[in-house]
Amino acid sequence: MGESKMLLLALGSAAFFGIVSIFFVLRWVLHFKEGLGWDGGLAEFNWHPVLVVIGFIFLQGTAIVVYRLPWTWRCSKLTMKFIHAGLNLLAFALVVVSMVAVFDFHNTAKIPNMYSLHSWLGLAAVILYCLQLVLGIVMFLVPVTPVYWRAAFMPLHVYSGLFIFSSTIAVALMGITEKLIFGLSNPKYKDSPPEAIFVNILGLILVVFGALILLIATRPSWKRPSEQLSHILTMLQNYNSPIFCLLVH
Amino acid sequence: MGESKMLLLALGSAAFFGIVSIFFVLRWVLHFKEGLGWDGGLAEFNWHPVLVVIGFIFLQGTAIVVYRLPWTWRCSKLTMKFIHAGLNLLAFALVVVSMVAVFDFHNTAKIPNMYSLHSWLGLAAVILYCLQLVLGIVMFLVPVTPVYWRAAFMPLHVYSGLFIFSSTIAVALMGITEKLIFGLSNPKYKDSPPEAIFVNILGLILVVFGALILLIATRPSWKRPSEQLSHILTMLQNYNSPIFCLLVH
Repeated sequence: MGESKMLLLALGSAAFFGIVSIFFVLRWVLHFKEGLGWDGGLAEFNWHPVLVVIGFIFLQGTAIVVYRLPWTWRCSKLTMKFIHAGLNLLAFALVVVSMVAVFDFHNTAKIPNMYSLHSWLGLAAVILYCLQLVLGIVMFLVPVTPVYWRAAFMPLHVYSGLFIFSSTIAVALMGITEKLIFGLSNPKYKDSPPEAIFVNILGLILVVFGALILLIATRPSWKRPSEQLSHILTMLQNYNSPIFCLLVH
Repeated sequence: MGESKMLLLALGSAAFFGIVSIFFVLRWVLHFKEGLGWDGGLAEFNWHPVLVVIGFIFLQGTAIVVYRLPWTWRCSKLTMKFIHAGLNLLAFALVVVSMVAVFDFHNTAKIPNMYSLHSWLGLAAVILYCLQLVLGIVMFLVPVTPVYWRAAFMPLHVYSGLFIFSSTIAVALMGITEKLIFGLSNPKYKDSPPEAIFVNILGLILVVFGALILLIATRPSWKRPSEQLSHILTMLQNYNSPIFCLLVH
């Protein structure tokens, strides 16, 4: 199978698992739990997993691979940057609402905030995501930023973007664990009721979606053709081993 | 700061956080919990986090970056491959013992096995790790494997290695979450007793260690000099855009 067919297969699979994960989280809160509402109770809490899966996982993942869609390679790079930034901004807005839902629910039910490792790492991921957004816009969308700053900042932007995305999925898996332990009482999580199996499967789907996004984003030959060139040129500049001096000169 | 100084700083930081995480998990089970034993009880369970942190996280992470230690670049590639494989085999052995400890504990206490998302993803990670080990040895250490098979398999080996390592840390964070919820009763996890804070910090340290290992493993200019060459050549072969044809011919 050629590279372009493999890329299309990976993109199609990522879209499939991403959309299925949204159906799963909606069915979880609408069928197994209390539905959705904005009343300070459990129905308000339920916006938290729904908005995290739609925003922080599906939209962030989509934003990451938007440069890898072959049918957009004729569009200008600037257009794609605006789509990338727009999807991330939308994701960030949904994440903020998802956090408000949890704090509201905790305050109404007199449950402490920010005591769990899930909350610590989740808040850290949101803060890093915000920083990444601001720095990304300043570096890559403000027209006056020098080109060599952009080139120097790009590897850090890519690394931290993929790190934040992976952390988001890890934090979601911890959130699922917490919610199944606290939310299931008769039968309990350890007795594997249908909800437990269903939400464990949601966790697996999120991991598969994450694995596909990371694969699509990191495989060098699936980059936009113009970026493949800059990637090689940057590497040739960075390398200073004797072999490279021979190769380049 | 030059590339080689940054690499040394990253390696030093990874070693620091890795070793500190081992001290943290030991202090957790020896000071806050029931200590270590092999009696089917909680002291046997405690081998699970200890051996996972030492084997599946610290040793696996070390094995991943063993090719990035500049003072080994004079050693033959084959020597480094044996060290890489040996560390991973040792890690795998510790992980198997860590799983036996949990199954023993569950069976003695009549707690069901394999009901949680932590257990599903943890077992999946161990199975994938075993596959990765077997395929890695067959592909890269058996002398008769053709060189072009090795070259074709290498990107998959690297991607799945980093994916399994990241998943391991995510699974550990879920395990910490489970254990703090089940293990703390008076005061509870939500009341933030010293053990909860201490183990949350262990979780943060594991994330920082993972982030450093992923950074060291993926930054192209920190590779062994001889691998930088093969990396560029592979990429030039893979690219088929018109720009590359111009560049290469």
